[in-house]
Amino acid sequence: MRKPTLTLVLSTVLLAPMSFAADKRSEAAAESREGIFEVIRMYFGPVLGMVRGQIEFDGQVVSHNATKISQLAAMIADAYRYDTSDTDVETEALDAIWDNIEDFNEKAAALVSAADNLAVAGAADLAATRQAFGAVGQSCKGCHDDYRQQD
Amino acid sequence: MRKPTLTLVLSTVLLAPMSFAADKRSEAAAESREGIFEVIRMYFGPVLGMVRGQIEFDGQVVSHNATKISQLAAMIADAYRYDTSDTDVETEALDAIWDNIEDFNEKAAALVSAADNLAVAGAADLAATRQAFGAVGQSCKGCHDDYRQQD
Repeated sequence: MRKPTLTLVLSTVLLAPMSFAADKRSEAAAESREGIFEVIRMYFGPVLGMVRGQIEFDGQVVSHNATKISQLAAMIADAYRYDTSDTDVETEALDAIWDNIEDFNEKAAALVSAADNLAVAGAADLAATRQAFGAVGQSCKGCHDDYRQQD
Repeated sequence: MRKPTLTLVLSTVLLAPMSFAADKRSEAAAESREGIFEVIRMYFGPVLGMVRGQIEFDGQVVSHNATKISQLAAMIADAYRYDTSDTDVETEALDAIWDNIEDFNEKAAALVSAADNLAVAGAADLAATRQAFGAVGQSCKGCHDDYRQQD
């Protein structure tokens, strides 16, 4: 069952007519979702560079960035509460998300855990960071395989 | 003094030639910045609706959303470390940000505090929420007045 979110309720109050409201709401939802992943990318990049040996290892940066990724991953479930599968909004999000929302949210929760582990690993050394970073990457990939449009 | 961020270092390693790298890096920086505000908007909307009396007050949602806004506001300083003022990237961010980066970061830190106060207020009642929400709005406006392109 799909229940309306508070933000949906808000939009239908603020915007009229309804069809216009639905489009604006879908676009806003897609932008919020993309926003989360843009910020995750910002924090992911430097750690990727360290793991690849392209930039010097800095455990404090790893832990800082991983903590932010964990916080952002914990926002994913909120951002996907609004179901845009019946709209024509431009998005890479597959309709399968809302057909399997519990699985989707579990995968998002798994990213929170993987990022938390990476934050701990950063305080150790590069070897631990590499291992924990691999798990974060697998977590991303596992969800993208099922729920993101393939190029 | 403007020091390169780790992500800048990363980008210059990964992308070539340099001029292309600089453009891509500026675009990525602008997208990360916008991403933060897209997600803040997502959490801000329902609280705005409650404060306006358009949707029913739910203190748990207020506290939840305010906590997320606080976390996102704490990412602003990271997102603006990369100075795009000498680039032609499309952005609403004024060059004044990097001429006054300490003031800018203080204003972002003030938003963290205002959002933390809103999270506490949500646990109280609508009157407290209204007051704390007003302070959050003033914090947003204060920064936008100085550092965001006016329409």
